[in-house]
This record gives sequence, C-alpha cells and structure tokens, in this order.
Amino acid sequence: MSIELPNFKYQLEKKEPRLGPGGITRGVSVKEFDASKNLAGVSMHLDPGAIRELHWHANAAEWGYVVNGQMRTTMIDPEGNVSIDIFNPGDVWYFPRGYGHVLQCISSESCHFILIFDNGDFSEDHTFSITDFISSVPVEIAAQNLGISEDEVKKLYQGEAYFAQCELPDIKSGLASARNTVSLVSTHRYPLGAQQPIVVPGGGIQRVVTQKEFNIARTITGSIFEIEPGGLREMHWHPNADEWQYYLQGNAEMGVFLAEGQFVKDEFEKGDVGYVPMGAGHYIKNIGSEKLIVLLGFNNGLYEAIDLSSWISGNPKDILKGNFGVGNEIIDQFPDSDQLIIK
Amino acid sequence: MSIELPNFKYQLEKKEPRLGPGGITRGVSVKEFDASKNLAGVSMHLDPGAIRELHWHANAAEWGYVVNGQMRTTMIDPEGNVSIDIFNPGDVWYFPRGYGHVLQCISSESCHFILIFDNGDFSEDHTFSITDFISSVPVEIAAQNLGISEDEVKKLYQGEAYFAQCELPDIKSGLASARNTVSLVSTHRYPLGAQQPIVVPGGGIQRVVTQKEFNIARTITGSIFEIEPGGLREMHWHPNADEWQYYLQGNAEMGVFLAEGQFVKDEFEKGDVGYVPMGAGHYIKNIGSEKLIVLLGFNNGLYEAIDLSSWISGNPKDILKGNFGVGNEIIDQFPDSDQLIIK
Amino acid sequence: MSIELPNFKYQLEKKEPRLGPGGITRGVSVKEFDASKNLAGVSMHLDPGAIRELHWHANAAEWGYVVNGQMRTTMIDPEGNVSIDIFNPGDVWYFPRGYGHVLQCISSESCHFILIFDNGDFSEDHTFSITDFISSVPVEIAAQNLGISEDEVKKLYQGEAYFAQCELPDIKSGLASARNTVSLVSTHRYPLGAQQPIVVPGGGIQRVVTQKEFNIARTITGSIFEIEPGGLREMHWHPNADEWQYYLQGNAEMGVFLAEGQFVKDEFEKGDVGYVPMGAGHYIKNIGSEKLIVLLGFNNGLYEAIDLSSWISGNPKDILKGNFGVGNEIIDQFPDSDQLIIK
Repeated sequence: MSIELPNFKYQLEKKEPRLGPGGITRGVSVKEFDASKNLAGVSMHLDPGAIRELHWHANAAEWGYVVNGQMRTTMIDPEGNVSIDIFNPGDVWYFPRGYGHVLQCISSESCHFILIFDNGDFSEDHTFSITDFISSVPVEIAAQNLGISEDEVKKLYQGEAYFAQCELPDIKSGLASARNTVSLVSTHRYPLGAQQPIVVPGGGIQRVVTQKEFNIARTITGSIFEIEPGGLREMHWHPNADEWQYYLQGNAEMGVFLAEGQFVKDEFEKGDVGYVPMGAGHYIKNIGSEKLIVLLGFNNGLYEAIDLSSWISGNPKDILKGNFGVGNEIIDQFPDSDQLIIK
Repeated sequence: MSIELPNFKYQLEKKEPRLGPGGITRGVSVKEFDASKNLAGVSMHLDPGAIRELHWHANAAEWGYVVNGQMRTTMIDPEGNVSIDIFNPGDVWYFPRGYGHVLQCISSESCHFILIFDNGDFSEDHTFSITDFISSVPVEIAAQNLGISEDEVKKLYQGEAYFAQCELPDIKSGLASARNTVSLVSTHRYPLGAQQPIVVPGGGIQRVVTQKEFNIARTITGSIFEIEPGGLREMHWHPNADEWQYYLQGNAEMGVFLAEGQFVKDEFEKGDVGYVPMGAGHYIKNIGSEKLIVLLGFNNGLYEAIDLSSWISGNPKDILKGNFGVGNEIIDQFPDSDQLIIK
Repeated sequence: MSIELPNFKYQLEKKEPRLGPGGITRGVSVKEFDASKNLAGVSMHLDPGAIRELHWHANAAEWGYVVNGQMRTTMIDPEGNVSIDIFNPGDVWYFPRGYGHVLQCISSESCHFILIFDNGDFSEDHTFSITDFISSVPVEIAAQNLGISEDEVKKLYQGEAYFAQCELPDIKSGLASARNTVSLVSTHRYPLGAQQPIVVPGGGIQRVVTQKEFNIARTITGSIFEIEPGGLREMHWHPNADEWQYYLQGNAEMGVFLAEGQFVKDEFEKGDVGYVPMGAGHYIKNIGSEKLIVLLGFNNGLYEAIDLSSWISGNPKDILKGNFGVGNEIIDQFPDSDQLIIK
C-alpha cells in the first residue's frame, strides 16, 4: 500500500541552488514536492551587503524567519507607506501578496533566512523583479517614467538582476533604519524568538505568532517547537490549515495519518522540509541526542490545533470504554488534560 | 433535451447502508449524485447506547438534525473547550470543520438523525476516527502519548471501530450532560423545532436557523418547511447558496429552472434527497394528501431567498406590461406582496 | 517568444451583437477572450422605453456605468427591499450576485452603458430571465404562483423576452422613481462622474469608487482615467485584483509585464477591451491627439495599486545604486514621490 501513499519529506538543502552575486537560494513548491499544495518555501543566503533585489510576488504573501545574520528590508504598501526594518535571528517578517520589498544582509557575517509562502504554486514565474520590469518595457516608457534619458535607461541593469551586491549602509547616514523610536513590533516585523514561550518542563517549548499578535500576518501563522531528546509533540491535527515544516536542528520522526488506516512516517534532519495536509493527524518525535528545533508555517492567520490528550480527557469514560473496547483499568491511565509535548 | 439535463433527485434511503454494531448509515455526496457539488448528507440510525465513535472531518463542517430519539454529543474545539449536549427531535447541532466529536443515542428507543456537510466531496476518506488514528501510529508512539504500556495499547480496538456499543450513561453520574444551568441555545446546540415559525395560514410554516441565531453555524443555514396539501412553496431562488433537501414526510413535486429554457422536475417522497444549485429558480409543491415536511440545508451561514411574488410586486406596472406583453387586466391580478407559500 | 504570450486585447464593439426589440448587446467573457479569467463585460444599447427584462445572474455581481442617456433600474434584495433609481451619464450601479433587476432607458435618446461582472465565466447560461422562468415551469404552477388562470398564463410572453419595448414611464405617475427625498448616493447608485478627482495638472485625472464610498460594491472597484495626449499612467501593478478595461475615447498603448522578461503591448482605441492579470506590471500611454478616457473595473471591493515611482522613492539610495548597477548621477534623477500620471 505504501507505494500509493504520498511522500511528506523534501530534502531542500540538498537541492541544486540558484546562485547569484552575493546570494544563494533554494526553493520548494508543489512543482518539486507533490504534497506541498498550499504552502511553499525558500532557504536563502546573502553575503554582507548583498540584496535580493526589489521585487513582488503576484500570487503569495511572504513570511520570513531569520536564522543567522542581520537583515534590513524595505516594504511599500498600496497607500505608498514605506517600512524599513532591521531583523536579527529569531525575528519574523510578513509581506502581503503583491507588496514590493527588498531584502539585504547588513551584518558583517552572511545571513541565512527561511521564507514561507501561502501558495503551493509560488514560483519564479510569479515573482516580478524591478530590473526585469524596467528593461522589459519600451525604452521610451522607462525614460518617461524614471525622468531620465533613453541613454541613461540603457545603463541600468539589463535583464533580471535577482541578486546584487551593494555596499553596507553607512549607519551614520540614517539609511540603516527609518525608525526614530524604539519598537518591539512594527508593521511587518515581529520578534518571535523574544516571545515568552509555552513551556512543558522537561519536554520542550513552543512559540506561536498569529494575526492576533502580528496584525498584518492575516494568511500565515508561524511557530517554533524546541523538543528535548525523546520528547514527543503529541498526536494532533490542525482543523484550519496545512503545515509546512523546516527542520533547523536535530533529528525527528514525523508521522502523518490520512484516515482509513493510511499512515506515512519518515525521518527528518537539519535542512529537511516536511508537510502535513489540513486535518491530517500527525506527531513529531525527537529521535536524536540533541534538542530538536523545527520551524512551522500554517496557511491561516489564526492557529488551531487539537491534541489527542485534550480530546480524550474531555470525553466521558463510558464512551471511551465502549469506543476502545477496554475497561477502566486502561481508561483510568489515559491523560486527564492537554499534554502538548510528552517527555 | 432532457437527456442532457442534470438529475436533482437521489433516493438516499434506498441505498445499501453501512452497518456496524449498533449503527446504520447511508451517505450521499457528489460521488453518487452529480448535482451534489457543494453539500453532502447522511442519514444515520443508532441503537440505544450506541455511538458513532470519536472522529473529525478534515474537509467539512457537520450540521445535524434529530428526527427521532435522544442524542448526546461531545465536541472539542481548538482551545480545548469541551461541550457535552443533549438533543431531542427537532434539535440541531453544528460542529466546525475539523473539530473532534462523538454522537451517542441515549434514549431507550433508537435514534435517527440527518447530517448535512458543507462540502460535496465529503466522504469517509476525509473522516478520521480515533481508533484508526491510534492503531495506525507505531505502538510506542501510542503508548507514550496515552501513558500506557505497549501491551495495553494492543488491547485497544485495532482498526477503525466506526460504530461501537456503549452502556447507556448513568444519569446520576452526571455524565449524561456537563451542564449545570439550563439553556435553550448552547455553543453547538439550537432547538429549531421550538422556534416560533413564519406562518402562512392555510399554507404552511417555515423555520430557519442561520449564524445570526446560532453563532457557530458560519457555513450552513438550516430550514424546515411544513406545507399543507396542495400548497406551493412559491417560485424563488437563493442568491448565495446551494440547497440540499431531505424529505421527511409526504409527497412533493420539485422543479428546477436552469435558464435558457432548461427545466427539470421530479417527484419526491419520504427519504429522498433533492438538490438545487445556487441561483437556480425552483419551487416545491405538496402533491400528496398529508402535510409535506422537508428539511433544507444551505452552504452559507446567512439565508437569502428571493420570491417571484416579492420581485414582481416591487416593479412598476409599465415595466411588467412591456416585459410580459400583456395589459392591466392580467398585471392587476399579480401578487402585490411576498407570498412564500401559496395555498 | 511572442507566439506563446497571451493576448490582452479584445475588440468588443466589432463583435457581432445580440439584437432584440429595442436593444443591442455585445459581451465578452473568458469564452471569447482567454485572458479574461476573473472579470467579464458587456456593452449594451437600449432605445427609449426599452428594457433589458427582469433577470438575475447566478454567478456574478453586476457593476454598471452609463455612457449615454438616462436609465431607470429596479433591484430587489433578499429581504424584499425594492430600490428604483435613475442614472445619468457617469453614474454607476451595483447589483450583488443573484439579486433581481431590470434596466430601462427612459430618456428620449437611446442609452449606452457598460456592464462589468466579477466572474470571467459570466454568460447567458448563468442569466435567468423572468419570462423564461415563468414559461418553463408547468402552467398550473405559474397560474397558482401568479394568481391568474392557466389561460392567462399562456398569454404572457412565451420563451425568453430578453429585451422588450415598454412605454416611457409617465413621470406624473411617480413610477419614474420611488424616491421622495433627494440623495447623491443610494443603495445601489453612485455618481462617479460627479466625484472630485485626483488631478495631476497637465497629466490627467483619476476617479475611483470602492466599497468604502459605495458600500454595496463589495466585489468590484471601478475607476476612470482621463489622460492628456502624451501622458503616461505610470508603470504599476495591483496586488489584489485583475483589471478589466474599456476604452471610451482616444488611442492608447497598453503594455503588460509578466515576469521573466515576458512583455506584451498593444494599441487600443474606442470600444476596445483590455485585461491585466492580478499582480502583473503595466502602463497605459495616450498615443493619440485627443484626451484618452478609459473605464477600469477590478474584481475586489478595495482598491490597491503600487506605482513604480512611489516604490523607488521609498528605497535608500545605496540599495538603488546596487540594484541597478549605476551611480548617483542617474539615481538622483529618479522620481522622489508618487507620480500617478506623467506628462
């Protein structure tokens, strides 16, 4: 039967990357990974000063998570408001579908970040870069639009730059950030790593950011689990969203239950991507010797999860006995409250 | 031309049922019934004490209507809140997509109820049962999750129970209901049969429950018509929803108008299911000698209907004369207000 | 490469029309025009007194714009409220999906108006006319519903009238309008041509009507641009909607950028329809000697546009220099604010 079952694992960091001046990117969408119907993802590296050039995505919003380095982004919204923000490891950004943005690594070390998109069909052919736009229209249109001569238009980068190397911004010029006041959360920045987590002593922690905490993120919820060795993110499902996983550290077994006796499990290591369809039962177990860290993205601005232990503990024992065909000697041992992560 | 026209009738109660210990179920979705694109339904019977085991539906919300007997349900939401409720004939429940629930017949007579789902693709392969979930994952995962030994896991029901026979709950144990205060409407219970109906004297009555009266029911509106012999639920259409019909009593002629002169009619009796696509004109006439009772489900939390008489009466006579090519002697006889049901 | 690229132009007014007593109509949907996936349109003419008969659209809302003449419409909503309104050139109506309505030309000159639908699959087979409905059902049903004899039912127009000639309403009868008080905006009427526009001196003007100004129009935003000779509606894109264009006057070049170096341009004249997919970059240039006037419809109740000049001016110069590979001598000439229309 397993030959018919879907595969929920994709080894993203083993994919051949797209390289450019200052940048490396690897993406996975439904094109490479059949299960990935409603979410896609990218792992990108930028050298100090390098940018992923000004661009927008026609069919997806972008949720970003910084793994290493310090990033600067700008975003423009349809009212013409510009946001410039700085991100450190653990910080999250969100750019609504179609909003123009640019990503720059401004640390002296290189940057690594993960992008999650709320559309499994996300791809380069729905990504619009500014150099490509300007060099595609007639030169007289570009000249009129930019207020420069046609000869000057021809000096601009021709074709699609995609990546480009810039100088590190001069912090004294004020260009590193447009902000004059301090803030923890801004329009498109949320410091997820600084959030006080849900803690299961001895088991692990969870952080979650939804549109409730981060208003602009109406279509994607993000979460990070840190699970101790042997710990089990218990059997559960998400009523309202698919789940996209990026394994940041450690070794996991992840199992997906698809009803009618169909079950798929696989092992995941750092750099692997996992996927769980909406409503499918699943669990994540730390099967290694170090802490397991996994980044999760859901295609819904609200977070919903139902855990097996919570469900069982809410039901009368007479029903549980009949349902499982066993007596109180077993039923009495069942969990009597939500467990989340089990040691 | 009729060979090309769709069929809007399915004889649900004549379908071969799925049988189990204590239960009988018959379902109809787009798989069996082409017209049923956006709503599906089930007619289920449970013996006293029997349960439809703990389960959830990955792709549909469930709207239930009790025809006979007394039911107990439990439902868990993603915040971990548990609701236990009791339902008598005429009462309605609603479980959002993906929320775990169990259904039990707790009367000394057997129960019969109708379920309506807001997805024409609803089916068993999107239905997840707790026994199936637990017996599909590795035994060590189930043991860790439930806090029991692997040997004990193997004593739990293996495979999918679907139906199971339980003891009737001991009312003194308090397990029949978790409620300590009386209520007419609770989170997922609405007593539709107790609602003061819209009455057309001599013609019949209508009851309707939408998300306005029953907040949780955001995706399904329910309604019951009782129509006297000869009575006509007049020509009308629903701008915002498909309609799924279950004939509870009597004999009807139901006609569906599909534009461009296309029209389909059929006769319906107790146990038949009818379907009307969004926006299609239709009527229901009681062609039998007893009262006609029909249960309706719509795939929208808000109820919208436009009746022919209401529409005509709102238009200037000069337009009606030109539109129909007749004079005042006919136009003056047209209804001058909404009729709903016509004797 | 151009052989693979889509075509974004359709010469609507050169299409063979549907003719009827008092009416002429030409429609374009995805059936005739591949690009037109999410919006469709109609250009219709009515003689004085003539009506487009009572009808509803099962799968689309209708946004109307009067080019010439004076129109009267009636609309009924699901609560049974009737609206009768009068429209002059520049006025806009909106009828939600499935709401019954009728259109009449009440001026002594003929009327011309443009209809935009929020569904590329809009077509006659989803349009339901009252004569067709009544003559499709059994005659005894129509008689019972209308309160007339079966012989009288047979005198009503048989088949689908579609267009019909009526008398001009007698203004003294009060039937020309149901309103007793003056109003600028009513439930389904908005006087777009009377709106104070956004003005770019020497370049042109824009008017926009969204659900913010016109509450009922939840699914369609409308806009009119008037662009002076040589003027350029600058390079921009719409994050949240496709764009449907009807050229009312003048001559334009319209170019669409589809990412990855793909670009399509064409010339448009009075009566042509253009289409731009959501997120695609585009511009409109007046290439004629008279003012260019173009009517735009978007399939979203909110208006979002991001202009190239606005985007560029919001970014630090160090990024622009690196992105385009040029120095300050060019970057300093770039626009430093939104331009909208460029002389």
